[in-house]
Amino acid sequence: MTITTHTNQTGPDNGVNVEALLGAREAMTAMPAAAAFTFEAQSEWINGTHTRTTVEEFFGIGEQQRHRRAFELDTDHPEIFASEDQGITPPEMVLVGLAGCLTAGIASVAQHRGIQLRSVKASIEGNMDLQGMLGIDGDVRNGFSGITVRYDIDANASREQIEAVIAQSQKRSPVFDVVTNPTTVAVELV
Amino acid sequence: MTITTHTNQTGPDNGVNVEALLGAREAMTAMPAAAAFTFEAQSEWINGTHTRTTVEEFFGIGEQQRHRRAFELDTDHPEIFASEDQGITPPEMVLVGLAGCLTAGIASVAQHRGIQLRSVKASIEGNMDLQGMLGIDGDVRNGFSGITVRYDIDANASREQIEAVIAQSQKRSPVFDVVTNPTTVAVELV
Repeated sequence: MTITTHTNQTGPDNGVNVEALLGAREAMTAMPAAAAFTFEAQSEWINGTHTRTTVEEFFGIGEQQRHRRAFELDTDHPEIFASEDQGITPPEMVLVGLAGCLTAGIASVAQHRGIQLRSVKASIEGNMDLQGMLGIDGDVRNGFSGITVRYDIDANASREQIEAVIAQSQKRSPVFDVVTNPTTVAVELV
Repeated sequence: MTITTHTNQTGPDNGVNVEALLGAREAMTAMPAAAAFTFEAQSEWINGTHTRTTVEEFFGIGEQQRHRRAFELDTDHPEIFASEDQGITPPEMVLVGLAGCLTAGIASVAQHRGIQLRSVKASIEGNMDLQGMLGIDGDVRNGFSGITVRYDIDANASREQIEAVIAQSQKRSPVFDVVTNPTTVAVELV
């Protein structure tokens, strides 16, 4: 299957190839099996709370795909917990994914609606009561009690139009969905 | 508040300072406000679907804290969607966080139980039907339909003991909680 790409855009250019996305939608509507993706990662424990995870391949459009290169990402705990702080913490990694997902959506939706973005900044905060994770209070959850994402966007559009772009991005965001809704996770020992 | 650290460990050494964690638990039991953490990230749209997110500070133990350095992480979409693939995709970032969280937990629990780990590898897969994200089928969710984490662990313990370590890690993992349970996300325009 080939996703046809047209790049004769006129008007706003946020660097998103909306024609390619529309082409993908058209192709996947005709052949839904092409939309079945599997994202993959391989992690290896380094020492203590330090883990290195490699992302290189994924499956989609009916075959095994490959990123341009292998990406290695380190997670660790900070020094206040007597760890070596060799990377951001795993919950912070989720915040990075959420910010990246919503922002890519904003750029894509804005492009589709003819809105030129000049800058899109987000400040994201996730509150977590460590009494859960540390087993101090069983009524406190381990994860975030709540997350707030504050966007500061400069674009050639009204505040209402920008708010509508943000809302549409939320509506389609995979990571927003994963964080706000339950997902089944199976953990197995080979 | 000071978290007391003792490092006169004997026996297995997975590089996790369990005494520091137990000290933190003790200190936060006495002063629950110290357990209120806020993880923070600042993201900036670069171009197209490419976003760069910086993680440097966080709040915890009653005051603003700082990682040893600022960590910058890039998210993007792959070339098959006519993007530049300058980083892993946002959903892959969630998989990285999940793998890092469960693995840090395994190292910590193993240390606490006197189990020496030799290697801990995980292969993680997240299935996603892009008919959701692309708006082809409203009955298909945007996020992962399911995630599987397969551990391959070499340690001086029985299979049953290793399975129990994995189970305990799941029970306390913040990211496992965030993925498997709903979390409220507020998205605002300043």
